[in-house]
Amino acid sequence: MQFDSLDDIRACCRDLPKGDVRFAEAAVRRQQNLTKPPGSLGRLEELAIWLAQWQGRESPRLDRVTITVFAGNHGVASRGVSAYPPEVTAQMVANFTAGGAAINQIAKLAGADLRVVPIELDRPTRDFTTAAAMDAAEFLGAVDIGYRAVPADCDLLAVGEMGIANTTTAAMLCAALLGGGGARWAGRGTGVDDGGLSRKRAAIDAGLHFHRDILWDPLAVAAALGGRELAGIAGALLAARKHGIPVLLDGFVATSAVLPLARLDRGMLDHCRAGHVSAESGHRDLLRELGLVPLLDLDMRLGEASGAGVAILLLRAALACHAGMATFTEAGVSNAD
Amino acid sequence: MQFDSLDDIRACCRDLPKGDVRFAEAAVRRQQNLTKPPGSLGRLEELAIWLAQWQGRESPRLDRVTITVFAGNHGVASRGVSAYPPEVTAQMVANFTAGGAAINQIAKLAGADLRVVPIELDRPTRDFTTAAAMDAAEFLGAVDIGYRAVPADCDLLAVGEMGIANTTTAAMLCAALLGGGGARWAGRGTGVDDGGLSRKRAAIDAGLHFHRDILWDPLAVAAALGGRELAGIAGALLAARKHGIPVLLDGFVATSAVLPLARLDRGMLDHCRAGHVSAESGHRDLLRELGLVPLLDLDMRLGEASGAGVAILLLRAALACHAGMATFTEAGVSNAD
Repeated sequence: MQFDSLDDIRACCRDLPKGDVRFAEAAVRRQQNLTKPPGSLGRLEELAIWLAQWQGRESPRLDRVTITVFAGNHGVASRGVSAYPPEVTAQMVANFTAGGAAINQIAKLAGADLRVVPIELDRPTRDFTTAAAMDAAEFLGAVDIGYRAVPADCDLLAVGEMGIANTTTAAMLCAALLGGGGARWAGRGTGVDDGGLSRKRAAIDAGLHFHRDILWDPLAVAAALGGRELAGIAGALLAARKHGIPVLLDGFVATSAVLPLARLDRGMLDHCRAGHVSAESGHRDLLRELGLVPLLDLDMRLGEASGAGVAILLLRAALACHAGMATFTEAGVSNAD
Repeated sequence: MQFDSLDDIRACCRDLPKGDVRFAEAAVRRQQNLTKPPGSLGRLEELAIWLAQWQGRESPRLDRVTITVFAGNHGVASRGVSAYPPEVTAQMVANFTAGGAAINQIAKLAGADLRVVPIELDRPTRDFTTAAAMDAAEFLGAVDIGYRAVPADCDLLAVGEMGIANTTTAAMLCAALLGGGGARWAGRGTGVDDGGLSRKRAAIDAGLHFHRDILWDPLAVAAALGGRELAGIAGALLAARKHGIPVLLDGFVATSAVLPLARLDRGMLDHCRAGHVSAESGHRDLLRELGLVPLLDLDMRLGEASGAGVAILLLRAALACHAGMATFTEAGVSNAD
């Protein structure tokens, strides 16, 4: 096991690599000499510089891009919070394996390897309204699976998830760690009706009450109110940081999965960018809380890393310009007056 | 000549093809059966349906994508409205030809053919503060060049421009056709200082006054206050509509170039999507006036079709999902309760 206790995770978050700012500075200098007004490629410039810092290369590369989709099941599904039955989690994992899901098409287009990591689908977490979803050992086991799922030599990691009822879990984590209750964080997920939305809000408020004594502790919250696939994402985030791998986060659930770590250290997400902002109502609010500005805003709300996967294309555009453009001198173009 | 008079353009705008809604409906039905909650791919679904309508295919394709960059020079450049000297227009055209510009890298990544169409770079338009930038014949000549630059068999057209001082021309067209004067529409373009910004505003206000008698006539405005590369974009838009080719617009200048046509007929831009919203201050306002919701918002402000070029990647993602995903039945996935 990478982490034998929650304290091991806390220790890891106190000793975070910061990337190498010298390569960021070199990338800034390169951008300033390319045949365009300074700053005119906007976030494409920022992305190239960010990749340079974390990869430790003036000219970053995306030769090996990994998309990892973690899957898990949720006890709270029994509360009628999703439009789909829990068996859809396993069915969609089979669909990922067969190549029929959206993320398969997007991964292929983006030149990324897709890894699907189901975590004990036949053992849902416990219903957090009446119990701890996971005990510390179960949580650490899922974090460990996530940590080990990251290839140490990949150039970029995009993380996503699949799990029926997990927008309720995501909203639960946000409510526990950011306040505001079910009314602030529950959304329609895959498309629940008004009744389902009410049940989501009620489940979250019940979870807040039942677990009121641990809300001060982000990792205890991640275990008792989270999910296995969310814990897997947290583990993957830690592994990527360890190896200097930049990370694209997917939507509301994937972002909520890293919230507990972000509460431990404000710099925890420096190696991350938000691939997109989801149409799920809480995501924009959560990104604002985390200081993340999403790359895409396309009303997507599918999960399974689909938004982060599309955002890989933007990183490829950023690097195509960064590496391929001529400088003012090379092109014989006059610079600004 | 495709158009012998401004009235020929007016007639063309009264008889616009509408695409084929049967293929849009077929694409909607296909989307509803794919293994995802309905609507969860957001704008990626809308884009696939839009392409289906204009291409007349349930499963649209992007085998032949053309990016056309029109270039022109502007008399108003003599008013000190740009941070760069006018010779940069021709230098950047040479850079496009040599493959060193941002759009070359983006076009290659997006699998698009890049066509560069300089229009009489050695003959700038006249300074619109004291004369008509173009007479009707000059304007029609540039529209004609744009019209003929569109391959009738391409699957998608992205349009952009290069022309020192042309954010002033773009702001001029917006002020003339939408009101508000230089203060509303002038921005920093490639990066003018406060003095340059003041001169831009003054030039626009002077143009409004000098041409006050023609502001009611969108095509007269496009000639007397526009630019050759903007007229080329307008011609390309008309050709694309004629041939049923969907169009991605680039930034502020490219969008302003189609504003005169949009003032002739509200449905004029139905075959268009805004590839992005530029950091140039007037663009967001202009898109709102036109009812266009941009696909990307990345603080780009380079022009040369760079934003539209990146947006091609989103269309490819949309079609990858549309064509490649399994249906619920094929994948054995349970649909919503």
